[in-house]
This record gives sequence, C-alpha cells and structure tokens, in this order.
Amino acid sequence: MHGPQSPEPAVPPLRRRGERMRRAVLGTVVELLSTQGLAGTTVATVARAAGVHETSIYRRWRTRENLILDALATELDAALPIPDTGVVREDLLRFLTSLGRLIATAQGRALLRLSVERDETLEDRRGPYWSDRLERAKVIVRRGVERGELAADTDPGLVIEAVAGPLFVRALLSGAPLDDTLVAGLVDLTLEGARPR
Amino acid sequence: MHGPQSPEPAVPPLRRRGERMRRAVLGTVVELLSTQGLAGTTVATVARAAGVHETSIYRRWRTRENLILDALATELDAALPIPDTGVVREDLLRFLTSLGRLIATAQGRALLRLSVERDETLEDRRGPYWSDRLERAKVIVRRGVERGELAADTDPGLVIEAVAGPLFVRALLSGAPLDDTLVAGLVDLTLEGARPR
Repeated sequence: MHGPQSPEPAVPPLRRRGERMRRAVLGTVVELLSTQGLAGTTVATVARAAGVHETSIYRRWRTRENLILDALATELDAALPIPDTGVVREDLLRFLTSLGRLIATAQGRALLRLSVERDETLEDRRGPYWSDRLERAKVIVRRGVERGELAADTDPGLVIEAVAGPLFVRALLSGAPLDDTLVAGLVDLTLEGARPR
Repeated sequence: MHGPQSPEPAVPPLRRRGERMRRAVLGTVVELLSTQGLAGTTVATVARAAGVHETSIYRRWRTRENLILDALATELDAALPIPDTGVVREDLLRFLTSLGRLIATAQGRALLRLSVERDETLEDRRGPYWSDRLERAKVIVRRGVERGELAADTDPGLVIEAVAGPLFVRALLSGAPLDDTLVAGLVDLTLEGARPR
C-alpha cells in the first residue's frame, strides 16, 4: 500500500517525470514508424504526436537518428528475451517463437521493413540492429555445447542464422506464415540434421 | 563453319530480330532496375535506353508490370541453375553458391531490394518470385531422399529454406559476407545437425 508520501522516495520526482516522458516519446516513435514509415517519423511529427516540445527531444536525443535507434532498442528488446531453460531445444523454440511473433506484428514488420529501406542517415547503424539481436542469442547454443547437448565444434552464429533466417525471409519476401510448425521444424532440422539415422 | 547463307535457315529472320530486340529490352530493364530502382524503371526510360519505340514495348508486353517480371524471370533464371550431380551435398553446395553469387552482384542485390520495396502495382506478383526460385530447388532434396541420402520424412521446403534463408538475411539485413565458408557450414549443419555423434 502506498502512503501519502511518495512511493519511491529514493527517485527524485523530476527524474521519474523524465523517464515517463522518455517512454512516451519512444512509444510514439515506434507507433509513427509503423504507420508513417521512416520518412514520416521526424522530430517534428514525434513531438506533435507525443505532445512535447521539439526542444525537449533535441535536448535529450540530440538527433533524429539517436531518437529512432533508442526507440528500436528499448521497445523491441523487451519483446525478445533470451530464454535459459537448461535444454537447448526448448531455448531455441522459445527464442524463435518470440522472434516470429515480433516480426509478425505490424510494428515488427514495419521495423523490419525499415531496416531494409534505403536511408543514408541511418545506413551505418541499422544493419547492426538485427545482427546484435541474433548475436545475443548465440549464448543459447554455447550453453548447449557446455552441457554436451551439442557437438563441441558447433558454430553458435551459424545455428542461430540457420534457425532464424527463414523467419526473416518469410516476413520480407514470401509472406508465408511464421507458425509453430515452421519453428519446430527448423529447430529439429538444425539440431538433428536431414541424414537418415 | 557457317557458309554465306543464314546459319539458322529454319528460323525466319523477322523472329530472330524480334528475339534480339526482346533480349536487348530485358537487359536494359535489369540494368535500369540496378541503377535507378523500381521508380526509375518505366516503359519510357526503358524505351529510351534500349533505343526502341515505346509502342514496340507495349505491343509485346502490354504493361510495365509484365515487362519487369519477364526481365526478372529471364535474366536471373539463367544465373540460378538446379544442379544434378547425383550427390545431395554437392547439389546443395552448387545451388547455394550460385544463389550467393547472384544476390551478391549489384543486379541481384538491386532485384532483392526491389522485392521488399513497397509498390502496389507489383505487390501480388513479386513475392512469389523468390518463392518460386526456392520451390524449384526442392527437387535437389527430393532426389536425395530417393537415393536414401536423406531421411524419408525430410521436408524438402524446410531444408531449402534453412540453407538459403541466411544468405537472404545477410544480403538484406546484416551485410555480412556470402562466402564459401558460410555456404559449406550451412549445408553441413542442415544435413548432419548440431547434436554430437
């Protein structure tokens, strides 16, 4: 129960208000990217939609580029946790299921499309966005190797690329569904291989 | 040796000239797509660059859409043959090497980017372009199953997606190299799996 005093006395009210403003602005950026695309997401349109002054945005993020990248990192990372169940197959299934759900949402699809759009101002820093997300997932494979579930010479990056690649291709190129059958099929193929046993 | 007469007397000269014109126009379309993108590739710009009348293009292809799709199919399919060496690993290596080379060229990259660009007029028919190319490659896996090299319940489409997916992701998102190490790693992972043996 909260008393009449501030519930979090250690955090100054100004900082809390600053964090609320930050999350509101970043949410607005993701919303605008989804509906208006990169071209329609400017400091001016974000400020108007979030109901803040443009100067407040420039003070905190300095450039439109920083603003967009902060929004991508903050809003999407929460949707893509790295599981650690103790079983590599289960971890891969959960990770891929999250990834598939993320890129199947309107926002995820918009942000994926944004990553392949040409835009000189973001060229050098967007490419790494998805690479970083896949990079972080390598630990799933490393843990599997440490537990002896996977061969000692397994290349963690290759495994993650092999299981995740088709999800991106379906979302970007073919439009085929990202369903549980696909996810399970990819994980089992990558773990067991197609050779007869 | 060709004598003084026509070297292919069975083909009327008019049809040969028509085929030469067709190939010249389609080559120009691919060239313009690579350098000017979809927006810069119109019947007018193609006609000017190929040195033919717009009416000749409309007579043969009727719409800009047909023209572009004919160019994609004709010019790229020659670069993506389906090998049949009698060994599934070798066939997959050759197919992926061709695919990697194709999407690493300036033209291939432009055409790939074109496939993810928004353009309402082509929306319904471009998606299937790459899907059809991957669909045709399934026969490599089917032959491997028939020869007993792969498990009887192998899903051909899944194998092709797993080996080809990362090439598209690298070309579109990460910009990481499409080299022989990647291709061999993907093929071996997909055939043998990551479990210890």
